[in-house]
Amino acid sequence: MTTKEVADKLVKLCSQGKFHEATEALYSTDIVSMEAGAPPGGSREAKGIAAVKAKGEWWSANHEVHSVAVEGPLVAGSHFAVVFKLDVTFKPQSKRFKMEEVAVYKVVDGKIVYEEFFYSM
Amino acid sequence: MTTKEVADKLVKLCSQGKFHEATEALYSTDIVSMEAGAPPGGSREAKGIAAVKAKGEWWSANHEVHSVAVEGPLVAGSHFAVVFKLDVTFKPQSKRFKMEEVAVYKVVDGKIVYEEFFYSM
Repeated sequence: MTTKEVADKLVKLCSQGKFHEATEALYSTDIVSMEAGAPPGGSREAKGIAAVKAKGEWWSANHEVHSVAVEGPLVAGSHFAVVFKLDVTFKPQSKRFKMEEVAVYKVVDGKIVYEEFFYSM
Repeated sequence: MTTKEVADKLVKLCSQGKFHEATEALYSTDIVSMEAGAPPGGSREAKGIAAVKAKGEWWSANHEVHSVAVEGPLVAGSHFAVVFKLDVTFKPQSKRFKMEEVAVYKVVDGKIVYEEFFYSM
């Protein structure tokens, strides 16, 4: 798949809330995922598909998603950017909030090998 | 200015090739600019408006711009992303090439305080 094809598929799956399916279909086993900031005692960076899936599973288990909108993609060579706008409840605290972030992805050989998220904390 | 207003103005100025004007109008004195990779012997990061202007002036002096297209912006909270597609000649080597990159910006108090570029090298 070209960068644009990967980007379009990511947007389609994530728009439907199918984050896990997007990871399964599009991510390299060597994926590196970078957050805007580190969790307490943790790292900004998750390396490898197992660590990235674990991060996604923790997120899905702890958030109820009321709505998700994905804007983009903007594609440039091996990279693309999208925007996520989510309305979620953080279940452990029953706290509902809206989050908006820019996500940038790098594609090599038809798979996403790097992702980075930009948001204010 | 809101993030969207800053983003729209950046897109407008850069689409016209007015990169210097964009820096003058929109950048914080405390701007941090991050390239995808470091130049030989240099750093990925330029800190402060003087260093960022110097980087821009070097670039402008060494490249002839045949065309520039800016796609976006995608806006999320304090951040936005655009794509640059340029057709340029690197003057010292008379080497013409096309470059495509994703750029991500962070806006605080109506000024750009952070920019990062994503491209393959």
